[in-house]
Amino acid sequence: MKPLRIAEIFGPTIQGEGALIGEPTVFVRAGGCDYRCSWCDSMHAVDSAYRDAWAPMTTEAIWAEVARLSGGRALTLSISGGNPAIQDFGQLVARARAEGYRTALETQGSVARDWFAGLDMLVLSPKPPSSGEVPDPEALAACIAAGQGAGAMVLKMVIFDAEDYAFARRIAADHPGLPVYLQPGNPETDPDRPVAAQDVADRLLWLVEMVTADGWFGVRVLPQLHVLLWGNQRGV
Amino acid sequence: MKPLRIAEIFGPTIQGEGALIGEPTVFVRAGGCDYRCSWCDSMHAVDSAYRDAWAPMTTEAIWAEVARLSGGRALTLSISGGNPAIQDFGQLVARARAEGYRTALETQGSVARDWFAGLDMLVLSPKPPSSGEVPDPEALAACIAAGQGAGAMVLKMVIFDAEDYAFARRIAADHPGLPVYLQPGNPETDPDRPVAAQDVADRLLWLVEMVTADGWFGVRVLPQLHVLLWGNQRGV
Repeated sequence: MKPLRIAEIFGPTIQGEGALIGEPTVFVRAGGCDYRCSWCDSMHAVDSAYRDAWAPMTTEAIWAEVARLSGGRALTLSISGGNPAIQDFGQLVARARAEGYRTALETQGSVARDWFAGLDMLVLSPKPPSSGEVPDPEALAACIAAGQGAGAMVLKMVIFDAEDYAFARRIAADHPGLPVYLQPGNPETDPDRPVAAQDVADRLLWLVEMVTADGWFGVRVLPQLHVLLWGNQRGV
Repeated sequence: MKPLRIAEIFGPTIQGEGALIGEPTVFVRAGGCDYRCSWCDSMHAVDSAYRDAWAPMTTEAIWAEVARLSGGRALTLSISGGNPAIQDFGQLVARARAEGYRTALETQGSVARDWFAGLDMLVLSPKPPSSGEVPDPEALAACIAAGQGAGAMVLKMVIFDAEDYAFARRIAADHPGLPVYLQPGNPETDPDRPVAAQDVADRLLWLVEMVTADGWFGVRVLPQLHVLLWGNQRGV
């Protein structure tokens, strides 16, 4: 098997967002992405300019690092990116599960993989208009079909403005069986610039007020705790 | 039936903590408590000095207000306090469920009620040593037994210091079947004094580092989002 391109492996820390928020997690961040979101906060895992920094690793080597970081004690392994679905993480998912770890994958839902079915949690994050990307509804539907065997599957959408909010309502309406998580966008993408905790609070408040005023009660609204704790620093 | 003593009914807003964090919710806060936690952030629902401000309400009147606030659209009804288990909320729980609302109750686990079994979510929050209270293990066990029929049941514990943390580990070990949520304590109890968002972040970071250094991976660590958003203000 071809080695996997890995931007970083770090943890244990808590999952900062979405359905598994607050859960101790080791993260494997894949290098490479088929999207270029305008506000991407992980460009070091996306832009080919960083490609030389992505370590080519075998599944075995990745697993060894996850096991080392977690002291061999089972927790949640979250695979993110970039878009991890453009590579084959099926063996890593199987290995982690065999060792009693819980597995989660985060992807925009542009590329479907049969190994989604082996996950404990598949997080699909279609990108809203503010990203500058235009998600393909058929690709998303294919990802949802591929994820039917997963332990759980959710939609998570980032909201920067009213147009993003309308997009999220449409996506949710198209897929009524999936739990929906919304989070306010983080406009600060420079890892070297701190993010004020109050700014995180202000953006969350804005989104909470939008959701409650609209009466969209079948949704969960959460901040990005890692931004609250560490701004855009990497490796945390 | 005797009227219920209600300190406040408010929402919809998001649930700020624990297993249902981020979920649109209307809160019914019961007046009266069998505890006097040193750091209580809801003394207006606890101390008898506020008793005159607690409205005596029938289940029907409470339900009418919940329905009005939520515009008749089903969401989560969370009953808190004070300790709501010292009064009989069985009829309200049944009424809300019959109307398609999801019901949650938050109690320290000192008084068991047969109507716990009708809840969608029972949150048991045994108070740690820093509270000045000493939870009765038999009362907590009785609450857990009463909650077996509930849709879900979790432990949520507030952590101010290392002694509280050790307490939480013991309680979790005594009840290995229950999901555990930890949250950092909020030492500011005056509703008129703001809480800096950075202080919320700092306390969360402290607890995250304690949990990950200890390798306690079977737990979730979450802040109080309502404190991040509104400090200790009431009615939000």
